[in-house]
Amino acid sequence: MKRTAIVMRRMAVPFQSALTLTTRSHTTLMSPPLVSLDLPDIWPPNSAHFHFPVNCSNEHRAVEINGRLIAEEIRSGIASDVKRMKKSIGKVPGLAVVMVGQRRDSQTYVRNKIKACEEVGIISTTTQLPGDCTEEQVVNALSRFNVDPSIHGILVQLPLPQHLDEGKFLDVLSLEKDVDGFHPLIMGSLAMKGREPLFIPCTPKGCIELLIRSGVEIMGKKAVVVGRSNIVGLPTSLLLQRHHATVSVVHAFTENPEQLTCEADIVITAAGVPNLIRGNWLKPGAVVIDVGTNPVEDPSCEHGYYLIGDVCYEEAVRVVSAITPVPGGVGPMTVAMLLSNTLDSAKRAYDFT
Amino acid sequence: MKRTAIVMRRMAVPFQSALTLTTRSHTTLMSPPLVSLDLPDIWPPNSAHFHFPVNCSNEHRAVEINGRLIAEEIRSGIASDVKRMKKSIGKVPGLAVVMVGQRRDSQTYVRNKIKACEEVGIISTTTQLPGDCTEEQVVNALSRFNVDPSIHGILVQLPLPQHLDEGKFLDVLSLEKDVDGFHPLIMGSLAMKGREPLFIPCTPKGCIELLIRSGVEIMGKKAVVVGRSNIVGLPTSLLLQRHHATVSVVHAFTENPEQLTCEADIVITAAGVPNLIRGNWLKPGAVVIDVGTNPVEDPSCEHGYYLIGDVCYEEAVRVVSAITPVPGGVGPMTVAMLLSNTLDSAKRAYDFT
Repeated sequence: MKRTAIVMRRMAVPFQSALTLTTRSHTTLMSPPLVSLDLPDIWPPNSAHFHFPVNCSNEHRAVEINGRLIAEEIRSGIASDVKRMKKSIGKVPGLAVVMVGQRRDSQTYVRNKIKACEEVGIISTTTQLPGDCTEEQVVNALSRFNVDPSIHGILVQLPLPQHLDEGKFLDVLSLEKDVDGFHPLIMGSLAMKGREPLFIPCTPKGCIELLIRSGVEIMGKKAVVVGRSNIVGLPTSLLLQRHHATVSVVHAFTENPEQLTCEADIVITAAGVPNLIRGNWLKPGAVVIDVGTNPVEDPSCEHGYYLIGDVCYEEAVRVVSAITPVPGGVGPMTVAMLLSNTLDSAKRAYDFT
Repeated sequence: MKRTAIVMRRMAVPFQSALTLTTRSHTTLMSPPLVSLDLPDIWPPNSAHFHFPVNCSNEHRAVEINGRLIAEEIRSGIASDVKRMKKSIGKVPGLAVVMVGQRRDSQTYVRNKIKACEEVGIISTTTQLPGDCTEEQVVNALSRFNVDPSIHGILVQLPLPQHLDEGKFLDVLSLEKDVDGFHPLIMGSLAMKGREPLFIPCTPKGCIELLIRSGVEIMGKKAVVVGRSNIVGLPTSLLLQRHHATVSVVHAFTENPEQLTCEADIVITAAGVPNLIRGNWLKPGAVVIDVGTNPVEDPSCEHGYYLIGDVCYEEAVRVVSAITPVPGGVGPMTVAMLLSNTLDSAKRAYDFT
């Protein structure tokens, strides 16, 4: 497998010689090796995981969790809250977007966010920087929005050009306006009992909303999160655990991931691998939230490609009890949650309930 | 079971009525319910989990992972680093302990830490406050140590009397001196790829050190953490994941936890429930790190009690390949890691390598 090539495996030392190892070593372990190496999550090809035959009925079809409809409902609630705020205190929430370069997909995402803001009455403003801009230019844009009292949410559209380090910008961005919820302090507060994060990252929040609004019990259930990215997998697993699910996180270094997904009542996938999750990876009756949006080239489509998820939908739909489609599942929820976080932030800023 | 009594279960809404639920709701979900309730982890009595007969050989005995020996080795490495620092720049690391009240167990722990500091050449200073002291008094003590350049690590001995909120003190304590590593920013940095926490919490760091120094491969292995406390369970699960284990977290709301522990290559328990983990919860050949230190009253013992772990040692030892004893396993490692974090902090402060 690919991964073995990029990973230096530690020599397996039998237990009998463990003490020798101990007495021979004379240095104190420092933090970096103990925290361990960051390794890229390169998933092996699908076929490697495909061991046993699909066992699903031809008659059963899962309920489709309609993310568009649920997101619309949430947006309409936000719109009426914004209207109420305007009427009551003469203010509306404001969102600032910083965009670097001209990636077409990023342009589409930003356009969608701006449109969604407009529809609910949130004022948005975009700063467009050239693809070769300096770190300082981004920092300046963020700093300006940080002190602007009419702005309650700021986001830097990702991915950034390679020469820019997104971590640095997170450190500059005002925590009270980090509506994407990507700052480590927010992540830590999400992880820890007794703490309340200022914001919940949008996509994980959207996934949990889909479960709650579809009447899915989370507490005490076995949940598997596939993928462990900072943006989706990690915060989703932390959020599920705060809802008292028993959470397992599957990633590219997991051997036989289907053994875990097969036992799960709830599967949330954010691996970015088309059709990674086959029907036989899933427990009959499980609920599946598919965060994957993988473009597949197809000249016959309007934009030259169509989107599929991490889950093999046509197989899964015959096994599970409920599933989100791609597109039309998690995607619309992410945008709705961005609006929701921006509204929450404005409410906090104006002490408006 | 006990837990059902304290938990208000959400009404299970069938999928068919999910949309009705959606269209009826007109409010945007706010953060607190989405983050969900903090619920106490009250474990059901052991017997409830005990389903199938123990299947273990009478001949096999696991290797005992000797935490005392490994910790001693680490402390001796720290001692020589401290000596080298003193010789080279004329400075030594300094640890400050703030203690509130007169709990006997806390006094013992603090005494052990002070003694361990002395042995490696770290200077320690303790501020003892009365059990009924004000929040301000604790904050003042912390603030004094925050600005004292001879102090590189500060810890507040827990638990605190009920009228004091430990979270507040964490926010006061200088991040660069939080050698316990309990601050949410540290937890977030531990959780996130591409981030380096300033410190790794002592007990989790000690657990991983035990695994590494015993030659146990972590990458790609199935690990189960039992318990999800901010101090042990949570950071241990995050640290294992950074080492590329496939991590599942079992807690008091987990149904049939033994199904997960039975599959695990590595089990780290920090539930605080004596003998919770029976032999038949464990996979033959697994490695077990027992963080539990549960006092059992016994008038015949020197202090009127003895300590046992979360794992039924005599059963486990016949099933697994390696296991830590209680006492003499994780305990000594926690103190060694406190010294290690304090040394690291001093090295950073003096730019000494």
